Amino acid sequence: MKAIVFDGKLKYMKSYPTPIPEAGEALIRVTLAGICNTDLEIMKGYLGFQGVIGHEFVGIVKNVNNGNHSLVGKRVVGEINCGCGLCDYCLKGLQKHCPERKTIGILGKDGAFAEYTTLPIGNLLEVPDNVTDEEAVFAEPLAAAFEIAEQCHIKPTDRILILGDGKLGILASLALNLTQTDVTLAGRHEKKLQVAGEQHVKTVQLKDLNIRKDYDVVVEATGSADGFDIALQLVKPRGIIVLKTTVAYGKEMNLAPVVIDEIQIIGSRCGPFEPALRAMAKKLIDVKPLISAVYGADKALAAFKKAGEAESLKILLDFS
Amino acid sequence: MKAIVFDGKLKYMKSYPTPIPEAGEALIRVTLAGICNTDLEIMKGYLGFQGVIGHEFVGIVKNVNNGNHSLVGKRVVGEINCGCGLCDYCLKGLQKHCPERKTIGILGKDGAFAEYTTLPIGNLLEVPDNVTDEEAVFAEPLAAAFEIAEQCHIKPTDRILILGDGKLGILASLALNLTQTDVTLAGRHEKKLQVAGEQHVKTVQLKDLNIRKDYDVVVEATGSADGFDIALQLVKPRGIIVLKTTVAYGKEMNLAPVVIDEIQIIGSRCGPFEPALRAMAKKLIDVKPLISAVYGADKALAAFKKAGEAESLKILLDFS
Repeated sequence: MKAIVFDGKLKYMKSYPTPIPEAGEALIRVTLAGICNTDLEIMKGYLGFQGVIGHEFVGIVKNVNNGNHSLVGKRVVGEINCGCGLCDYCLKGLQKHCPERKTIGILGKDGAFAEYTTLPIGNLLEVPDNVTDEEAVFAEPLAAAFEIAEQCHIKPTDRILILGDGKLGILASLALNLTQTDVTLAGRHEKKLQVAGEQHVKTVQLKDLNIRKDYDVVVEATGSADGFDIALQLVKPRGIIVLKTTVAYGKEMNLAPVVIDEIQIIGSRCGPFEPALRAMAKKLIDVKPLISAVYGADKALAAFKKAGEAESLKILLDFS
Repeated sequence: MKAIVFDGKLKYMKSYPTPIPEAGEALIRVTLAGICNTDLEIMKGYLGFQGVIGHEFVGIVKNVNNGNHSLVGKRVVGEINCGCGLCDYCLKGLQKHCPERKTIGILGKDGAFAEYTTLPIGNLLEVPDNVTDEEAVFAEPLAAAFEIAEQCHIKPTDRILILGDGKLGILASLALNLTQTDVTLAGRHEKKLQVAGEQHVKTVQLKDLNIRKDYDVVVEATGSADGFDIALQLVKPRGIIVLKTTVAYGKEMNLAPVVIDEIQIIGSRCGPFEPALRAMAKKLIDVKPLISAVYGADKALAAFKKAGEAESLKILLDFS
């Protein structure tokens, strides 16, 4: 099969071995996949991953090895973390924190930038008919945006600021804007801010932001080490800072204000797919304006180059 | 009156002007006061405070300026933060986060290391008869220990680790040990650990601690910049790190594990006096073993020297 492989270098391969689903797994024919910033980080060495990269996808279940066949032939998206199924975390439904977990295209398991990928049946969700492939491929990053309200009690009276107008920042602003809170997205790129602005999110240029302790919740999605310091200057006493980027925040930090103002800092990673699919099915969030370009699988190297450009939002890879 | 004043240098003064309570304030005759690490930090320049220092006290209400007189003649302790009474924080009962607040002996208002101090009547709590002065003077630091359970949902099945066997670490271990959780106090000083150990807290030498992600809640009370890094290595995914020291954590930190493991970090400062007084009245916590020495007010400089020694726990100042 065609596959995009990272083995220290990114490669488009015409004849990579098709994966064989393990017991309880489905074989999925990938139709469309999305490039995430994590994929770009992997190319810089993040988690030392090697193999088929990619974790954002939509596809059709081809077959199932020893399990419920009801999803065969269905269009699906899939939760990317595969837990052991036996530990405390898995038994509490927190597979994504299983210490033994594999994560497709990121940790210990081949990913979705290929014609075929495999996932446990329990990880799959059928895509509603009125959600297109171009939308469904956003289920994973949009789920990460919904993780914020999954972790924090967001109150209707909250003032929320999202720092960073990248893909995750925009999706977070769209997801949080459904909560009837006062949501503002701050960033440096007028065109990116506009994507959220057109869906009724208030937007502001970072340089025009009043540096005051004005927000109940600040979502840090800049992907830069400075973001945390800015967040600290903007969050109210007893407020919440949600950290959304896994990029190493390696710099000198003073956490004393966190104690004095009793700030809560919440690390936030992958999220629940169901509300993401519901929001798209109900046409409450339009993800399509985030698509910057679609490339054929054989143009993956060009697609990755494009994904790394400052102006780009989501770059899709077509494996159909 | 006698007072301990910091004006860039610590001074014992025999005839400092007795404070005049403002409208709504009580004049309190201080009997006993406690030296806190924050007092030692003030001597290094923390918050730039100058004036009568001290914020841990027990005393007797002498009179009240224009307000309810029911506490006159009563033995009291007092919440140290004085809010404006008008802002959103004050109206929600969060005076301690009022942006205009004064804090006795720390910020904008003379403190309690003197024969007399003043506080708004609403800040005062009567001390139960069966709580001695030596115990009541711990109400403020013990309240800070109870703040942890005030901020976090502590579950009976939680495994909790307190890092640091200083006064606050010991008090936090005693307060959290009332919750039926599995509580361990880790530190470097055998004698200090013993104070908690004698009240049924499990204790361990820091060097003997297994560095594993084993704890649902880690309370960082070491007062050192390393404490946070150690806490990160000990907290479970989705666990909580409570930051208890206001000492500047100025060092390079990598917050990526906070995101990957979806850790919650909670800054925690002053706390509720009521449960602290209740725990002492019900004889559930014995604070007396934390008293290392009691000095007369005129020996304050020696008392501060003693308070700064590694072996010392609480040093009290007698103003009676």
